[in-house]
Formats: sequence, C-alpha cells, structure tokens
Amino acid sequence: MLYHLALVGFGNVGRAFARLLQRKEAELNARYDLQIRVTGIATGRHGMAIDPDGLDMNEALHLVETGQSLNALSRFPLTDIVDFLYSVPADVLFENTPVNHENGEPAASFLRIGLERGMHVITANKGPVVHAYHDLTALAKRQGRKFYFESAVMDGAPIFSLFRQALPAIQIHSFRGILNSTTNLILGRMEQGESFEQAVAYAQTIGLAETDPSADVDGWDAAIKVAALTTVLMNVPLKPQQVERQGIREITSDQIAAALRQGKRWKLVCTAQREGSGVRARVAPEMVAPDSPLYSVNGSSSIVEFHTDVLPGLAIVEGNPSPETTAYGLLADLINAVCLGAKDEL
Amino acid sequence: MLYHLALVGFGNVGRAFARLLQRKEAELNARYDLQIRVTGIATGRHGMAIDPDGLDMNEALHLVETGQSLNALSRFPLTDIVDFLYSVPADVLFENTPVNHENGEPAASFLRIGLERGMHVITANKGPVVHAYHDLTALAKRQGRKFYFESAVMDGAPIFSLFRQALPAIQIHSFRGILNSTTNLILGRMEQGESFEQAVAYAQTIGLAETDPSADVDGWDAAIKVAALTTVLMNVPLKPQQVERQGIREITSDQIAAALRQGKRWKLVCTAQREGSGVRARVAPEMVAPDSPLYSVNGSSSIVEFHTDVLPGLAIVEGNPSPETTAYGLLADLINAVCLGAKDEL
Repeated sequence: MLYHLALVGFGNVGRAFARLLQRKEAELNARYDLQIRVTGIATGRHGMAIDPDGLDMNEALHLVETGQSLNALSRFPLTDIVDFLYSVPADVLFENTPVNHENGEPAASFLRIGLERGMHVITANKGPVVHAYHDLTALAKRQGRKFYFESAVMDGAPIFSLFRQALPAIQIHSFRGILNSTTNLILGRMEQGESFEQAVAYAQTIGLAETDPSADVDGWDAAIKVAALTTVLMNVPLKPQQVERQGIREITSDQIAAALRQGKRWKLVCTAQREGSGVRARVAPEMVAPDSPLYSVNGSSSIVEFHTDVLPGLAIVEGNPSPETTAYGLLADLINAVCLGAKDEL
Repeated sequence: MLYHLALVGFGNVGRAFARLLQRKEAELNARYDLQIRVTGIATGRHGMAIDPDGLDMNEALHLVETGQSLNALSRFPLTDIVDFLYSVPADVLFENTPVNHENGEPAASFLRIGLERGMHVITANKGPVVHAYHDLTALAKRQGRKFYFESAVMDGAPIFSLFRQALPAIQIHSFRGILNSTTNLILGRMEQGESFEQAVAYAQTIGLAETDPSADVDGWDAAIKVAALTTVLMNVPLKPQQVERQGIREITSDQIAAALRQGKRWKLVCTAQREGSGVRARVAPEMVAPDSPLYSVNGSSSIVEFHTDVLPGLAIVEGNPSPETTAYGLLADLINAVCLGAKDEL
C-alpha cells in the first residue's frame, strides 16, 4: 500500500525521520507492504512545498541543511501553514513543531485540521498531548483515524504503545522516573567537576539545551511529560502547571560532591501517585543510591518505572537517544496507524 | 463475547490465573466486552474435569488446594490429558505444565492438539517455545489462531508482545540481562552472609527453587530463556544446549565479599550477540558495577536490555514478580488473542 505523508516541521527530528524512511524503505516494503511518498513539507523558517507526485527528499534535505528555502520544490505557491494543511494531498500528517507548554498551540490546531481532512496524525510534540488529548482522541475516533504520539515522552522508547496492546486491563497506581535528558546530563557533568554554567553551556553546544535553558533546568519539560503520562495512561488530565515543580538551579557543586562521597547521585526525579480520584504529581531533585534503578540512568538516558495492580514494578529504560531515536517513534506510530490495524483499548 | 477456556496445569500459576480472572471479571466485561467461562481443567496429580456449562472455579480451587481430585466436578469420566484435550469444548487452551528443557514435550503436543482443534493456545512454558516455535506458529497461522507465550520469559513483563506492535521494523543486534530469579535471589542472600547452601534452602522454602535446584543454579533456566528470546525475537533458532552455560555453583562467599568491597555484585548474566547469520549466546556469572543497569536488579527481579538498529539501548525491568505476575501475562495474551485483533508482524 502506498501512503502519502505531509511533514509540518523539518528540524532535527523531521529530517532524521526523512532519513530513516529512506534507510528502511526496502524493509517497510518487504515486511509491511508499505510504500511511502512525502507529498508536502512545511517549515517555520525554510519555506514549504507540495508535490502530489512526491517531493525529492534528498533535495529537500539538502535545501534545508544549506539554509535555503523549500519553496523552489513546490508545485504551488505557498506561504501559510494552514493553507498548506488544507491543500496537501496526504494520508498521514506528521507534526513536529516546537512545543508550547502553555496551550499546545498551534500544534493542536494543525493536528485538528489533519484529522478533519481525514488524515492519521502523528506528533512528537508534548503540547497537544497535554492540552488537547481528549478532544483530538475523540475527533480521531469519529474520523476513523489515529492520533499517535509515541515520541512525545522518552523519544522512541515504547511507552504509550506499550499500554495499547502489550499491557491491557492494567491499572497504574503510580510511576517514578527521569524524563528530562538535559538536566540529567547537566547533573552528570557537574559530578565530573563542571559548574552549573559550564554544564549548561556544554548541553547547548551539543544541541540538547536551548539558548534559554529554563524549560529544562526549571523542570517545565519534565512537568509536561509527567502531565502527558498521567493524562493518557492514568486517565487523569493534568496540566504542567498542576505538577509540583522544582528545577535543578539550586543544586550546588558542593551538594553534588557531598552526594558522591556517600556513593549517591542527584537526579531530577518525576513522580505521580494516585490520590483519591486525582493524581499527585511532582518534579524535584532527589539523591538516589546505587540500589535505585535511577542511579545507573546517566547521560541523556531516561527511565520510567510503573507500579500497577498486576505488575508490582515495570521499568522502561532508554539509553543514549538521538534524533533518530525520536524518528523511530514516529515510524513505529506510522506502521501501527496504517499497517497493524490494532484496536486501541486505552 | 463469551469465551470458553481449558486449563492444562493448575499449579501456582494456573490457580493465580483463575483468581485473576475472577478479580478482573467486571473490568474485562466493561472494557473489552469479554466474558469468560472455564469449561475444563486437567492436572497431573489432582485429576481433571470438564463441564460444558462452566466449572465452579471456587470449588475447583478449593479441591486442588485441599489435596482433593477435580474428578468429582466432571460431567464425564476422564483419566487421560489427551482425551481431555480432544473432548473439552473450549475456544482457548492454557498450557501450564512443568517445563521440559530437553524437548518441550508433552507441552508442545498439547498445544498442537489445541491448535488442530481450532483453539487459540497460550502457555507460560518455555519448552514448546524453544523446541517447537516455528511449527506451532505456522500451525497457528494456518488455523487462523494465536500461539502466545508472554509469560515464558520474565513472567508477566511484556517482552514478546512489545515486539509485536510497539516495536515494528526493528532489528535486534544483541541483548544482555538477568533472566533467572532464583540465582539472583541466591547471590543476594550470599551478599548478606549466607552460604550457597543456606541461600538455596531459603529459595526452596519460598517456593522459588525446586527440590533439585540444578535447573536454576547450573544456568539451564537462564539458557532456555536466552534460547527463547533469540528464537522468537532474533529469528535465529537456538536450543538451550547451544547456549554457552556456566552456573553459579563455583561462586564462593569469598568472591561475593571481594566484589562487595569493590562496590560490585555478582550476577548471572545472559548475553546474546549476532555473529554472521547466527547468534553467540552465553550465560555466566559476572561482576557488575553500580553504573550497570543490572546492579540494582535484586531479589527475584529481572531485566533485559536490547541493543537495536534504531534504539541504541532499551531495557525492560520487572520488579518483585509473583505467580499473579505470570498470570497477568496469560491474561494479556488472552485479551490480545480474542479482543485486540492485531496483526502479528514478527
């Protein structure tokens, strides 16, 4: 089966996804009878293009990576992403624009248009998951389409999809984990003697931290991930503002060294626990000992451990993610949406 | 939908499964429109019974747990498990007899009969997975039925099902883990000062180790689990005899103490690594440091870490399993077989 894809957002993740589709082309064809054509790409700063016969992806990658505009590839003049969404001839929309912690826009609106036009919609963006999960899921159901977002938490590690089929009839009591890579890396660099400022600067040079690192170091990214997990997996909608939140700015080099002397490490720990009909959720630095599964989760790796009614402890650990890891989550969503035909039973 | 189940084997796991079905009855009905009736139970030492209208499960549990025979509940005289399999009116067969590391029998034959009679077949038994995976999978496909065995490795933690839908289009290069609970518990007790013999005796009193502990301490149980994972997930059939195998008998209390002084722990580590078209697989004791994810996996917990073409490291950790954990794996298989209707893409 041939599917036409539209990509909104063509940054590190979008381009890694395009490359992964190229690398996996033969495997997808042989194993899933799946053929892919990208018919549209829209970006914030590098223009946009639609070609119903399929865009030349090598050309598109080259243009964006050399700072040029995609407009030269388009069969139609385009200037607006909403116009793009209403005109692109596609079966599946991939939305990978920057996250908006406040209200999930404009990503949520882009996804809504995609679903209204009958596309499956797939995103790595936490914003619409936290701010529009129930609306978008209901709309997807009415349209007979899928709204998947595996890459929104822990890159390509299977978290949401795990609970779709592999873990049916399960009730999550609580979870605990390390969900923000940047702070985990910063704390690790500080263990090796760097100051907070040096460690932040390093995280910026490798592209992990933003110019303004506050979304990471103040715990917003971790809080929105906690909110996404409680909203989707525990059926308790939470906004990131409802997560108790303490970042890592106040962890001093002295505290890091004192922990090391005790054989321990500081981690930015996420927790969520059912309380009555709600969930108490928290992001805060904690010292962890070697007997904790969190102790060995270093660098940009992450972990989440679920406590459930049927499995006392089930942890998923993702080691050394990269943009390709996130891209794999998008691919897994695509294959599940169009090939595996599973019923969703969340 | 009403489904009729037949249970062959009614030991700790079979009975925990029966209790889990009772506990989850309302949830299965509400969430999956799934109603369950057990129409047959066959045991090695407590007789067997068939009732097409459904057996009284409280009565069956009571009889077996007080050392009585199930025969009193049967609507037909029965003495032979093969006769039972050919007469029980059921949609799904659960096979939970003791594992046979040599050839997987008679479990593999029981499953074959079940599939030939048009039942889905579900087992927690590693024997038929290792010794008859390809035959039984092909037979299941011809019959339009499922052969599922999530509980065969790491109890109810999702391993096989993870690769059915959540991780499509992935190639496993290698894996590494702790797959045998008994030896992990024994090594932990030895760290606390017990001798090997004392630790084995303790594992026997809590029902974890057999009277003859050799299947665990000599590494056979770990080896058959490694063989099951390579056979199913890496598509390289291995018999447990082909796994390099070294048990824990030669680990002395002195070695345990020396490791502790270095801040390390002995673990019985399973590894498998592709080499050409094959896999090199190994079970052997190793000292692990706190920076290894294996270090914090203690007691009867287990872990497996996969290295793949798209995710550099993905680990699944199961904490504190019990017979109910294994029973949950059987339930997850049941729901996947009869409700979720997913295509299998291994």
